[in-house]
Amino acid sequence: FDSKLPHAGTTIFTHMTVLAQQANAVNLGQGFPDFDCDPELLRLMQEALQSGHNQYAPMAGVPALREAVAQQIQALYGRTYDPGTEITITAGATQAIHAAISALVRPGDEVILFEPAFDSYEPAILLNGGKPVPIRLRAPDYRPDWDAVLAALSPRTRAILINSPHNPTARLWTAEDMQMLAEVLRDTNVVVISDEVYEHMVFDGKRHESVARYPELAERSYVVSSFGKAFHITGWKIAYCLAPRALMAEFQKAHQFIVFCTHAPSQHALAQYLPCGAHLQLAAFYQQKRDLFVNAVANCGLRWLPSEGSYFVSASFAHLPVLGEMSSLEFSEWLTREIGVACIPLSAFYHDGFDEKVVRFCFAKREDTLHEAARRLQRLS
Amino acid sequence: FDSKLPHAGTTIFTHMTVLAQQANAVNLGQGFPDFDCDPELLRLMQEALQSGHNQYAPMAGVPALREAVAQQIQALYGRTYDPGTEITITAGATQAIHAAISALVRPGDEVILFEPAFDSYEPAILLNGGKPVPIRLRAPDYRPDWDAVLAALSPRTRAILINSPHNPTARLWTAEDMQMLAEVLRDTNVVVISDEVYEHMVFDGKRHESVARYPELAERSYVVSSFGKAFHITGWKIAYCLAPRALMAEFQKAHQFIVFCTHAPSQHALAQYLPCGAHLQLAAFYQQKRDLFVNAVANCGLRWLPSEGSYFVSASFAHLPVLGEMSSLEFSEWLTREIGVACIPLSAFYHDGFDEKVVRFCFAKREDTLHEAARRLQRLS
Ligand SMILES: CSCCC(=O)C(=O)O
Ligand SMILES: CSCCC(=O)C(=O)O
Repeated sequence: FDSKLPHAGTTIFTHMTVLAQQANAVNLGQGFPDFDCDPELLRLMQEALQSGHNQYAPMAGVPALREAVAQQIQALYGRTYDPGTEITITAGATQAIHAAISALVRPGDEVILFEPAFDSYEPAILLNGGKPVPIRLRAPDYRPDWDAVLAALSPRTRAILINSPHNPTARLWTAEDMQMLAEVLRDTNVVVISDEVYEHMVFDGKRHESVARYPELAERSYVVSSFGKAFHITGWKIAYCLAPRALMAEFQKAHQFIVFCTHAPSQHALAQYLPCGAHLQLAAFYQQKRDLFVNAVANCGLRWLPSEGSYFVSASFAHLPVLGEMSSLEFSEWLTREIGVACIPLSAFYHDGFDEKVVRFCFAKREDTLHEAARRLQRLS
Repeated sequence: FDSKLPHAGTTIFTHMTVLAQQANAVNLGQGFPDFDCDPELLRLMQEALQSGHNQYAPMAGVPALREAVAQQIQALYGRTYDPGTEITITAGATQAIHAAISALVRPGDEVILFEPAFDSYEPAILLNGGKPVPIRLRAPDYRPDWDAVLAALSPRTRAILINSPHNPTARLWTAEDMQMLAEVLRDTNVVVISDEVYEHMVFDGKRHESVARYPELAERSYVVSSFGKAFHITGWKIAYCLAPRALMAEFQKAHQFIVFCTHAPSQHALAQYLPCGAHLQLAAFYQQKRDLFVNAVANCGLRWLPSEGSYFVSASFAHLPVLGEMSSLEFSEWLTREIGVACIPLSAFYHDGFDEKVVRFCFAKREDTLHEAARRLQRLS
């Protein structure tokens, strides 16, 4: 079979989750909470189901939910998106990013992205015949190199994919990064696709630099965020995309033929739930989990990197005797099988498997889960 | 903006639904039930929500649901699909078809389809850089012309999209059609994408000719069907795709980067619900609605075409004085505004707007809705 994605296998998330189950390991690999969402959200879902909201939602999403998103974005970032023409509810953030890329990218078009990159970006570009142009971020800081971005820009550059808070490195882009980005793109037609699914999980009093805060960027950007991450319902697969009208019109042309619309009862439930402001507690909630985990594993032998945002924290094992010889994938598999804690190798987020011997742990877990993982990781030291 | 889909606007379904709402018309346009699903299914959904099934499902779908699908397909059509490697749960049938096309079609590849065609097929092909090769079916019989299919086949033909029971014409493909298809494709590598979302709605004792019944076809086919249609939950956006292992591997490569996975609680609920066999009552349930509606409108002045399957029935208005001069779109808009019944023009399902003055009505409605629509349509006579 002449595959369009010859190098795509099972995703690293599926691979490590299956391995974790087989090994009965504490699964800190794939990013998802092991606790449930707010019972109030389940109650609202039940209400939506009982109120007959079981047929197609409008293509762009339930109007009340788009309204609620617009209000939240206005309150957080001071930009107004018109719920009628500039907001679309999607079947998860992966689908939103796929639709944005499908709307933009033709054969031969180039899309700049920063590696380590979430693993759906490159295949989405490739499926559309585009050419991913990766810029490598390196441990321990994973700072964007703006000269490299300038050098990567070409007349074929159609879009640039950015992501802060960053998965997998848990680093944030700063206001200066955003200004550099605006400057670098000023005289181009390059569209920005900004993956901001961890927007509410930013720690130590830092600020999330949403593209929506920067008019010069927002005008040329798709902004993608996720209800699944914000409200502990990753399995509901519900997210949204924001963009100025003309960009959104193209997005919707693709979206309507990819999924047409998304889960109606979930949308009605979230429309009621959003105004309660649960997202405002999220930073403190996850900062506590980060601190608990990082303190508990501080002396286990791994070298922990800072986590500024998201629900991930990474660690280097390069310095460990013998284990430091392994690849990140081998180490992740070994850690899962032998220590009983699953993680994700950062090398899986580089197209060429570039390996600095760093692995990612997800701390979106109950306290007892984090304690148990820490207890097991002590066996490393 | 240099659009990848310059001719795509709002879908005809959205257009007519919005118009129906504005005109306070009975909406027999977009295909969805105006009654609710089985309360038992809502109860099972509530149970799934309360059982903590709110995080990511596996990429291919919840195993119990894939098992249940495999058993149903085996019982109905006698083919075994391995739940582990040959079944994927999708975010609706549109997404399944999009993923199949994305997995297969490269720039320049040709895909044969039959018009009138569901409106997502061509854009999905175009978004992937492919070339739709439409074969025109004509009123009143909409029979495939096998010589035309033979003539349309070329070395660039990658796939052929078929759909029975057919939306919008409500016609069925026969066993002879399936044999012809198998014969025509015998010496090619063409993949079949079979949209069978109305499989359980086949009337007058006729039989649904699933591709899954024909080994020679099934081996080269993606078969797509929908829980939304079968269980009156179009808003849940949940469907599935079946294919032999090698084809399914390619499908999943695309699927995992388009949506990754689908609504987890819905999948758990359906896994419990599927074995109860509700789909077995569906043909009788919808045949009764078809008969009620068709009898009630028999003398309203439109010329009704046969409905062999699906929840649609079409009618020609070409013979009507004055009204017969309108295009199908104009007539649909007029009928919505002046008579208060929304329908869908079949011309919207032809890429070139080919117009035989036929419109489609959806009878997936409560009896009182159908009576009210019929009462209004009497004003035509
Ligand atoms: C879509 S599955 C992976 C979840 C996730 O975002 C991650 O673990 O990085
Ligand atoms: C995806 S919205 C349209 C529903 C439908 O299948 C139809 O009306 O033909």
